Amino acid sequence: MSPVTNGRVIYNEIPTGFPVPGKTLIYDESQTIDLDKEPLHGGILVKVLVLSIDPYQRHRMHDPSIPSYFPAFTVGTPLENDGVGVVVRSENPKYKKGDHVYAMFPFQEYVVLRDAQARVIDNKEGLSWSAYVGVCGMPGKTAHHGWMEYAHPKVQKGDVVFVTAASGAVGAIVAQLAKAEGVKVIASAGSDEKVDYVRSLGVDVAFNYKKVSTREVLQKEGPVNIYWDNVGGESLDAALEFAAQKATFVICGMISSYNVDEPYNVKHLQQLVWREITFNGFLYTSLISKYADEFYKTMPGRVAKGEIKYKEHLVKGLENSAQALLDVLQGNNFGKSSIIVSED
Amino acid sequence: MSPVTNGRVIYNEIPTGFPVPGKTLIYDESQTIDLDKEPLHGGILVKVLVLSIDPYQRHRMHDPSIPSYFPAFTVGTPLENDGVGVVVRSENPKYKKGDHVYAMFPFQEYVVLRDAQARVIDNKEGLSWSAYVGVCGMPGKTAHHGWMEYAHPKVQKGDVVFVTAASGAVGAIVAQLAKAEGVKVIASAGSDEKVDYVRSLGVDVAFNYKKVSTREVLQKEGPVNIYWDNVGGESLDAALEFAAQKATFVICGMISSYNVDEPYNVKHLQQLVWREITFNGFLYTSLISKYADEFYKTMPGRVAKGEIKYKEHLVKGLENSAQALLDVLQGNNFGKSSIIVSED
Repeated sequence: MSPVTNGRVIYNEIPTGFPVPGKTLIYDESQTIDLDKEPLHGGILVKVLVLSIDPYQRHRMHDPSIPSYFPAFTVGTPLENDGVGVVVRSENPKYKKGDHVYAMFPFQEYVVLRDAQARVIDNKEGLSWSAYVGVCGMPGKTAHHGWMEYAHPKVQKGDVVFVTAASGAVGAIVAQLAKAEGVKVIASAGSDEKVDYVRSLGVDVAFNYKKVSTREVLQKEGPVNIYWDNVGGESLDAALEFAAQKATFVICGMISSYNVDEPYNVKHLQQLVWREITFNGFLYTSLISKYADEFYKTMPGRVAKGEIKYKEHLVKGLENSAQALLDVLQGNNFGKSSIIVSED
Repeated sequence: MSPVTNGRVIYNEIPTGFPVPGKTLIYDESQTIDLDKEPLHGGILVKVLVLSIDPYQRHRMHDPSIPSYFPAFTVGTPLENDGVGVVVRSENPKYKKGDHVYAMFPFQEYVVLRDAQARVIDNKEGLSWSAYVGVCGMPGKTAHHGWMEYAHPKVQKGDVVFVTAASGAVGAIVAQLAKAEGVKVIASAGSDEKVDYVRSLGVDVAFNYKKVSTREVLQKEGPVNIYWDNVGGESLDAALEFAAQKATFVICGMISSYNVDEPYNVKHLQQLVWREITFNGFLYTSLISKYADEFYKTMPGRVAKGEIKYKEHLVKGLENSAQALLDVLQGNNFGKSSIIVSED
C-alpha cells in the first residue's frame, strides 16, 4: 500500500490566556505513513479513533522551565491526551490486530506505540468507544476515585453536597455518585439548557450561576458539608462563606483561573479556620492504584444499565481539535468533549 | 469588709477594621463587689490574676446575627478570654480557697464562676501563672494539638517545614515541635529582633518578611512539605507557589485578613490541584478531647526543663487591655501577650 497522509495537531507556541486555534495549535498534513512498512520495533501500530479534550490540557501549555507534576507539552510536537484506537499491526504478543486499546496518544491519525502502556478494552457492555475516554475514562476515574477517597468516607445522612460545573464531564458523574449516597445535592451549570440536563440527573437544586447568585442559593439551601470544586473563584468563595462546620472540600479543578493573569480574589479563606474546613487537592493519577480495578469492574456496567448517565459532545475531525479545546475552556461545550478522529 | 471596685473592660461596639481603645473597648470602674457577701449560688469567687490576649478575640467582634462557631461578644458586656485566677471563696467542694484555676473569664478583677468548668492547676513545676495562658495554655494547645493531628503523621526525614509568625505565641512552639522532629525549619517574623529570637529557637532559616521576599526565600530553601499558616495572604500564596507535591498545609490562623475589607488576593490556589495539596483548617477546641491529657502531662515539664522555650509580653493593668489587643493584631507585641490583672 502506498503511504497515506498522517494528519497531526501541532503545539506551536505557549499561549498567554486562551489558546488560539491556528496559532497555539496548528493542524498539519505534511507527514505520511506507510501502514504496511512503518517500522514498529516490537510495538504496535494504532489507528486512532477517539481523542479526549479536557481542561487540564491547557495546564500543560506552560514554560517547560517551570517544574510541574504535569510536564509541559513540547513546542513543535503534537498535542497529547487519552484516546482509544484500534490495532492495525502488532509486534507485541500482548496485542493483536483488531484489539481496541486505551492509551495516551499524540493527536495524529496513526501512531506507533513502542511500550506496552496501552490497556486493551474488552467492552462486553458494547459502549461507544468515546465512552472510554469519558464516563469510563479520565473524567469518570477523576469523579469516582476522588469521591471514594475524600467524600464517601465523610458523607453522612442529611448532608448537603454542592457540585460545580455539574453538566461537565466530571461534575455530572460526581452529582450522580452523590445522589446515590442519598444526600441533598445542589448543582450549578452555565446555561439553562445545562441546568435542565443536570436536573434530569436527579439533583435536588440546580441553577444557572450566570443568572442566579451562587451565594444566595447556598445561603438558602446550605450550609454545605461537601463541596466538589471544578471551577474555583467565586463559587469557591461562596462555598467557604456558607460552609458547614468541619466541611470537606474536594478540589478537583479551578477552571476559572486557568486562563487569567489575576484570578478572582477569594475573600473567605479565613473560614478554613473558623469552620475547620479541609481542602483536598488531588489528581486522579495518584489514586489509580487504589481504585482503578474496582472502577473498570463496576463503571461500564453501571453505565450500560443507565444507573450512571452521561452526555457527549463529539467533534468530528482532528482539524477541529483546537476549537474544541477552546470551547471546553470557555464552557461552550455541553457534555464530555472528544474528537472523533476516525470511524471504527 | 466593705465593697471594693471591680474594674471591667466593656465591649462597647462592633468595630470596622482594627478595634479602637476607648471606643470598641472601654475600661469601666462603676461596679463594686463585696468579697464576703457576694452570693455564689454554689459557685466560686475568683480573683483574676492573668488574662490572655489573642488575635481570635477580634473574630468574636462581629454582628451576632451572623451564625458562627465562635459566638459574638455581646455589646455592653465584658470582653472574655482564658485566664488564671485564685479562689477567694468557694461553695463547690471541687475547689478550695487558694486554688489556682484556669478558665474562660470575663475581663474583670473579680468573677463568680457558677459552673464547674474551671481546671485546677497543680503547677508542681513552679511555672509563672502567665505560662498557663501561653505555652501551657491556649496557644500551646493550639500548636501541640494541631501539630500532632495534622503534621506529625505526615512529616518525613528530609522534609521542609515553613512556619509563619514564628515569634508569636503559637508559631514559636510550632517551630520547636518541628525542629524536635529533625526536619529543616524555615521561619518568618516581622522584625529583625523577632528573627534573632526565632533563630535562637534553633530553626534553620529565619527571615524578616518585611525586608525579604517570602517567595524568594521559599524558592531557594523549599519546596515546602509542611506549611503552618498563622497569617494567610501573601505568605500563603508563596507557600502554594513553592509547595512540594502532596504538601500538607495546617491552617491555624489568617491574621493578615482579620481587619481588612478586601484581603490580599491569593493567586496560586490552583496549585491545590496540580500539587495535590491538603489544607487542614482547625480550631484546637475540637482536638482537646484527643490531646489535652497528654499535653498537661508533658508540656509543663518540657517547659520547666527548657526543652520548649517561650517569651512573654506581659502588660500590667486591666485598663491596658484594649491597647494590648490592638498591639497583638498589629504585630507590635513580642512574645505571648497577657494582661497581669493582679499579683498573686
